[in-house]
Amino acid sequence: VVAQKIVSKAEGRKVRLRDVKPGAEALRLAGDCQKDPRLVELILRESSEVLRCRPNLLIVVHRLGFVLANAGIDASNVDGKDGDETVLLLPQDPDESAARMRHAIERQTGAKVGVIVNDSFGRAWRLGTVGTAIGVAGLPAVADLRGRPDRNGRLLQSTEVGIADELAAAASSLMGQADEGRPVVHIRGFSISGEGRAADLLRPPQLDLFR
Amino acid sequence: VVAQKIVSKAEGRKVRLRDVKPGAEALRLAGDCQKDPRLVELILRESSEVLRCRPNLLIVVHRLGFVLANAGIDASNVDGKDGDETVLLLPQDPDESAARMRHAIERQTGAKVGVIVNDSFGRAWRLGTVGTAIGVAGLPAVADLRGRPDRNGRLLQSTEVGIADELAAAASSLMGQADEGRPVVHIRGFSISGEGRAADLLRPPQLDLFR
Repeated sequence: VVAQKIVSKAEGRKVRLRDVKPGAEALRLAGDCQKDPRLVELILRESSEVLRCRPNLLIVVHRLGFVLANAGIDASNVDGKDGDETVLLLPQDPDESAARMRHAIERQTGAKVGVIVNDSFGRAWRLGTVGTAIGVAGLPAVADLRGRPDRNGRLLQSTEVGIADELAAAASSLMGQADEGRPVVHIRGFSISGEGRAADLLRPPQLDLFR
Repeated sequence: VVAQKIVSKAEGRKVRLRDVKPGAEALRLAGDCQKDPRLVELILRESSEVLRCRPNLLIVVHRLGFVLANAGIDASNVDGKDGDETVLLLPQDPDESAARMRHAIERQTGAKVGVIVNDSFGRAWRLGTVGTAIGVAGLPAVADLRGRPDRNGRLLQSTEVGIADELAAAASSLMGQADEGRPVVHIRGFSISGEGRAADLLRPPQLDLFR
């Protein structure tokens, strides 16, 4: 499991705010949500829809389909000190990033691995961020257990497990968020096969009751 | 981390549907969401508010504050075979359940432990359930990193981590949902101190933009 932050850095996704010129919509939203208009401009460029705008809070649908705050754009652990004003966007295509790492590891070591790129997301009804899968390669993202028996032989009706998100959260608890300097977590002994991608974890609009 | 299911069973939270008499509201909702009216009656008794009702889907605010489907009432891995119609409610007070287990373990072994009771929750915008903390004792539920430095010495502005949820998800990936028979996961080597409870993870109504 590889932290989004180092993937984004490796892929050159840093942007200096002084190079960003906010447009009219960014200027308008920036007032409503009390954010730097240049940051709002970047958020809008990375998003397909603005869901909520409140003081110091902007919840969007990212162009990759994730619902999250600030389009995942972040200034911590990026560069320099307070005032440096460099921010970091999500990778252009985190599934592709995961696939590249998977194949590079397999090529160089011969080991079969699954790779997850994770980021810390907030949740609608719960406080605190949790590690969440934004890129997946070499393992299922959602494990469909329908038809599997429970311990009494009763067949499960509808259990789909967000297994890549559970592993992303597990790794996140070890990565930390501050000065731990531990951006990769190696999970061993977890056997699962299949080919998923982060988009499998997105609830389609017709099943989304809370957007 | 202890699965809700065995805690509920140990606390006698099984209900036979044939012993439940649905009231008028349950009968009305049961039609809208195409569920057994007796099950809907139990869901209503366990809930403070119905948020969404769709065919085969009932999202409520549980009396403990959790937003979840069917008030966490479940029929898998409960008893007997298909048709037995016994369901299982969440523990009466999962924080208290966790605290009792914590103290019993400390009393019997001398070891200091934190205990999480976890359950599998769906999410607003993402498919697949993930393990989520519904009871916490002996560790923080939310870790507040505000004021901690990042690797560049920049102080974090607003990072609150749902650490008990991350650990609950980690454990859930090992517990499985079907016939694994692994309802307790022992996490070792994870050092964290503090006293939290599951309610710390609930987003207060004034910060909830999606209810």
